[in-house]
Amino acid sequence: MTEQQLKDLLADMSLEEKIGQMVQLTANFYGTDMLITGPMGSAKIEPEDMKLCGTILGTSGAAKLKEIQDNAMATQPHHIPMLFMLDVINGFQTIFPIPLAQGCSFEPEIARKGAQIAAKEAAASGLHVTFAPMADLVRDARWGRVMESPGEDPYLNYCFAKAMTEGFQGETPENLKEKGNISACLKHFACYGYPEGGREYDNVELSERTLRQDYLSGYQGAVDGGCRMAMTSFNTLNRVPSTANKWLMRKVLREDLGFDGVLISDYSAVEELIPHGIAEDKREAARLAIEAGVDIDMMSDVYLHYLKELVTSGEVDETLVNEAVLRILKLKNDLGLFENPYKDASEEDEKNLILCDAHRAAAREAASKTFVLLKNENKTLPLSEQEVADVLFAGPYVDTRALCGAWSFPATYDNIKTVQECIQEHIGNACHFMKGCSMFYDKEVIRDYVEEGMTPDEAEASIEQTVQAAKSASKVVLFLGESFRQTGEGASRTCITLPEIQMELLKRVSAVNNNVIVVLFAGRPIEVALIESLAKAVLYVWMPGTEGAVAITDVLFGVKEPTGRLAMSFPNVSSQEPLYYNRFQGGRPRNPGDPKAFCIGYIDTEYRPLHSFGYGLSYTTFSYSPVTVIKRETNTKANEAEAAWVASVMVTNTGDREGTETVQLYIRDVSGSVVRPVRELKGFEKITLKPGESREVSFEIIEPMLRFWRIDMTYGSEPGKFEVYIGGDSTTENKAEFDEV
Amino acid sequence: MTEQQLKDLLADMSLEEKIGQMVQLTANFYGTDMLITGPMGSAKIEPEDMKLCGTILGTSGAAKLKEIQDNAMATQPHHIPMLFMLDVINGFQTIFPIPLAQGCSFEPEIARKGAQIAAKEAAASGLHVTFAPMADLVRDARWGRVMESPGEDPYLNYCFAKAMTEGFQGETPENLKEKGNISACLKHFACYGYPEGGREYDNVELSERTLRQDYLSGYQGAVDGGCRMAMTSFNTLNRVPSTANKWLMRKVLREDLGFDGVLISDYSAVEELIPHGIAEDKREAARLAIEAGVDIDMMSDVYLHYLKELVTSGEVDETLVNEAVLRILKLKNDLGLFENPYKDASEEDEKNLILCDAHRAAAREAASKTFVLLKNENKTLPLSEQEVADVLFAGPYVDTRALCGAWSFPATYDNIKTVQECIQEHIGNACHFMKGCSMFYDKEVIRDYVEEGMTPDEAEASIEQTVQAAKSASKVVLFLGESFRQTGEGASRTCITLPEIQMELLKRVSAVNNNVIVVLFAGRPIEVALIESLAKAVLYVWMPGTEGAVAITDVLFGVKEPTGRLAMSFPNVSSQEPLYYNRFQGGRPRNPGDPKAFCIGYIDTEYRPLHSFGYGLSYTTFSYSPVTVIKRETNTKANEAEAAWVASVMVTNTGDREGTETVQLYIRDVSGSVVRPVRELKGFEKITLKPGESREVSFEIIEPMLRFWRIDMTYGSEPGKFEVYIGGDSTTENKAEFDEV
Repeated sequence: MTEQQLKDLLADMSLEEKIGQMVQLTANFYGTDMLITGPMGSAKIEPEDMKLCGTILGTSGAAKLKEIQDNAMATQPHHIPMLFMLDVINGFQTIFPIPLAQGCSFEPEIARKGAQIAAKEAAASGLHVTFAPMADLVRDARWGRVMESPGEDPYLNYCFAKAMTEGFQGETPENLKEKGNISACLKHFACYGYPEGGREYDNVELSERTLRQDYLSGYQGAVDGGCRMAMTSFNTLNRVPSTANKWLMRKVLREDLGFDGVLISDYSAVEELIPHGIAEDKREAARLAIEAGVDIDMMSDVYLHYLKELVTSGEVDETLVNEAVLRILKLKNDLGLFENPYKDASEEDEKNLILCDAHRAAAREAASKTFVLLKNENKTLPLSEQEVADVLFAGPYVDTRALCGAWSFPATYDNIKTVQECIQEHIGNACHFMKGCSMFYDKEVIRDYVEEGMTPDEAEASIEQTVQAAKSASKVVLFLGESFRQTGEGASRTCITLPEIQMELLKRVSAVNNNVIVVLFAGRPIEVALIESLAKAVLYVWMPGTEGAVAITDVLFGVKEPTGRLAMSFPNVSSQEPLYYNRFQGGRPRNPGDPKAFCIGYIDTEYRPLHSFGYGLSYTTFSYSPVTVIKRETNTKANEAEAAWVASVMVTNTGDREGTETVQLYIRDVSGSVVRPVRELKGFEKITLKPGESREVSFEIIEPMLRFWRIDMTYGSEPGKFEVYIGGDSTTENKAEFDEV
Repeated sequence: MTEQQLKDLLADMSLEEKIGQMVQLTANFYGTDMLITGPMGSAKIEPEDMKLCGTILGTSGAAKLKEIQDNAMATQPHHIPMLFMLDVINGFQTIFPIPLAQGCSFEPEIARKGAQIAAKEAAASGLHVTFAPMADLVRDARWGRVMESPGEDPYLNYCFAKAMTEGFQGETPENLKEKGNISACLKHFACYGYPEGGREYDNVELSERTLRQDYLSGYQGAVDGGCRMAMTSFNTLNRVPSTANKWLMRKVLREDLGFDGVLISDYSAVEELIPHGIAEDKREAARLAIEAGVDIDMMSDVYLHYLKELVTSGEVDETLVNEAVLRILKLKNDLGLFENPYKDASEEDEKNLILCDAHRAAAREAASKTFVLLKNENKTLPLSEQEVADVLFAGPYVDTRALCGAWSFPATYDNIKTVQECIQEHIGNACHFMKGCSMFYDKEVIRDYVEEGMTPDEAEASIEQTVQAAKSASKVVLFLGESFRQTGEGASRTCITLPEIQMELLKRVSAVNNNVIVVLFAGRPIEVALIESLAKAVLYVWMPGTEGAVAITDVLFGVKEPTGRLAMSFPNVSSQEPLYYNRFQGGRPRNPGDPKAFCIGYIDTEYRPLHSFGYGLSYTTFSYSPVTVIKRETNTKANEAEAAWVASVMVTNTGDREGTETVQLYIRDVSGSVVRPVRELKGFEKITLKPGESREVSFEIIEPMLRFWRIDMTYGSEPGKFEVYIGGDSTTENKAEFDEV
């Protein structure tokens, strides 16, 4: 349809019909089951109410959705097709590593490809929209949902959010209706990732300067990628719930970031304006949300039951309803639903595409690129096939299929291999496996789930058995970690540690065996200092997805190298959070290990992270030449800046096997009208070098890379001295200086 | 002098002389020793430079300061007297409990009296200005300097900052020159108390709304008390160092809060603008600081060496210098220094006033009012004199004189009694004392200090000896705590726990004796959950001051009752910080103990504090009748508000001994244009009741108490529903409602 046809359609719709387009209910109301990730609220939904509803969330399946579409269009006066939405985060059924792990790849193409595959599978299953990418900047590992973000760096978040958006939707707006593409939905606008104390759903305090400087970058990436939808966040930002924040939605999101798509609330967030204490009742909640520019009310009856009387009483101008509905109709039109209301729903494609070999191969390829080797003393890893008969494999993650993380409910476990199965396939049956211990002692109740574990007596027996076996093993590989239920939405933890029973297993085993390797599963950075002191090698594999166990086997045996670099800094201790590399020097700086009095930081812990952003080892080693910076007289990107510099290093593989290094560029603005971070990531490049091979890596530095929100809240660069760091992580001291004049 | 005479004097001064007034150096440059609480910086100070210097800090003593004054005035062209300043925080030599403890008294008169006594002693010793009150709101117990604040509540901070200011200065501006009064200096402007992660000197992120709503209140109290000086804070606020923050100093402090006194930098903070990265060099630092309105440069040579050329080159308008110097001259004049340059300096008064009986009695009286009884199962406390022969007293705080906290360096230990000495005086020699253990294992290096402790072997022997003695004791009282060196400036801790060796002592003793009482010394809330599980009674005595041990003896034996109530909430675990009672409910509220999924908070720890603001037990118990609220037709404070309500309860002493209760009034604004806290302290009253006695306590509620910073950043109240809570702490559910229309 043309824009004029859409406007004509809108003009012909009744107020009830229009409001129906602005209501999203779960598929539960359509007789299907789904995961409930929030309160069902106090909504009283009658079958009559659903007749005009314009969108549902939470279910999938080509046959089912085609049927729902047929019924919905038949009963609607204008036969407008429904939008079907679902949380397709790190995959639909072929599950990729969690987004935080993907951030560690420093390879946005991984995320793009993952999104493309997820979109293909989801589209075949009848879906039109996914609630991704999550572009919330995360600086506090206590928060459960850091797993869903690409990490702590604004620039990296920008790159990943843009790549994921383009992966889901296709490169241009015209691609959206093409087969295999679905609409992305950036979330959670804004700053859901920085609740005080890491407490899920708590208030976020941020100055406008820091908001704009760091926290909007990821969302901007999604907008620049053409993202067609956006979601409001649950949190209050400076005491205003996002879902009622007119300035944030109409000024910042639409005017400043340039977003022109459909804005949806998070799950029941419109109704939650009442407990937040900003709306007295549902009627006021409806008014606040539509004034803020929320087009779709997800999972509450607030728009459904109160918008009409607000419009008819004149309290809400019908033009607000019209602009919202037009945006929704445009999205449906851009998805091609008026011509093809099923879009790509196809039982045949579901069979052929979902979990197909190509998708699984891509997930396997992605996973090894997200693993971060934290420690590898004496080249304990990789294992050789020859030694494996003497190696003991143990721990609760040896024999589980729960490798996909907290946001993968369309996935089915029977498509996932365990670590034990994969290692046995790789090696044959010559190796030794033991459970070691359960995930938790006794039973652990997390949110509404119960995880059954060993009693202390059972654990003692099991651990002792493992210890006996460990005594005669040449190496012991322990597969340990958080449960995925300890991560994700509603799963903030104060103490981000390994469960006690697993720490007991590690302590006891490492007391009798000097070659312990720990493979760590987690949805966030956890405390690893003690773990590293007990192990010779530590491989952090996050929640690696459908092909996770295969990829782990690849890496353990050196078929693949672990090339991940940390997208979030690791604390020395939980109570060091929040924590991030791009912090400030302060007026009284502290050097590493410096016990000097009256310096920034703590008296009982290092100020810096245990492992800083960008950190990660390889199976080989690399050396860097000193950084050189030259000024170029003319600039290849003439429209963007007058001046340009080129910063270069020579990188050499100094080890004895081929390896991939992530060369990272950081810039520090030494002095500005406001205080600038000690350094900020401005570029990165992954290179693969043979043993002894050297290659020059160069980064162009242009003036826009030096811009920031200045003291007067204008955005621009300032003349002065800059430091350029190039190295293998954010702590590198390999630097050069230049002046911008 | 008249204002005109001051202006005439100013007009007659050379630029160098004027700049000299704006420089503060330490007394080190005058041949005396002092505590250095910051870097000495790179200042190159020549004797010639000091000739014109207008003020010094860091030393005291009538004879010495009179001599310095004589010499300074003799060499200055206009014979302008010097200002002498020192950190007189919770006392000069008669040390009161630390300010955080004083906050727990809920009795601003304690702070007023403490300030009066401190001022009398300091004035006799030749001082003119103290760097107090500290009015920084504190919500993160990891920060070392919470000890110096009255706590986490804006209203309580207001009351204490005002009372302290009036205590130091006298009630009116005219009182300042009277004998025994000195100028106060509010600090640290602004928001030094909320560094991210509790990291000393780190950046503070706050929206303007929260800044104005909560964080300015304490400073406003000092300004309303007539405070004559203010100090800039070390931290950056939203990436701008306070010492260079023109908006914060000229707009917020002077225009909005109404401060019209002298603004001084914190120690070397002007020079620290360079490492902060907002000034390229000292010259720029000088320009930024004077533009921001900093009148005195404390402890750097930035003004001394760079202000002149900035003025002569025209980069800095000399009117900025003139306004600063006029403010300094006015303060000197208001202190009466032009007539009496020694002010109250008197060797005779030093002998008679300092540590006199009246002062010590006041300190003793204050201390017991600051102790908080956290637990007292089976009325384990107070001890009776009869049972005491069977009681064992042990722990590193039994036999130390280091009871004054981190900000009491003029105090001398030989005026302080140990707990052991006081108990022996009270009881005679019949009781048993043991060391138990040292403060730390081995030696602990904190900042630049070394605390020597027992080796693990020595500790084992000492603890075992204590355990043997504990077996036959009827009760064991353990005196445990943080070292004062772990608190105060530069002493942030990630893990706010009892030192390991002391926890070992407690565990071992409590394993053999079922009646352990812990007396806990600390400069902040620490983790007490485990301590409470091992002890029958826990008495929190903070850092109690010169008469601390006497007051502890009073309370242990029931001569006095512990009447303190927490001015800061206690966490369940360190990594629950920041934490405070006046938080937000959120869109997905959580009830205590509620394991429901998808609620605000954590999965592994309660969302609420272990002990919330206002909590504290008595030796007796109290009951409360339901709250009643009546609306009054006419208002006694007609100028302030149209409407007024009276909220009342009947409080009854339900125990068997006389006791004092702190009746607390909290109000919740159920719904506003921005989200309002779950409750806010709006009043308190301490009442003493005999056993069985009842008394009605009433609070007037007037409209100004309902005001807040609304969505449009105007300050006012909004109509709607309010809840009124009256009870013994901030978790009371004893409430009534009213509507403002």
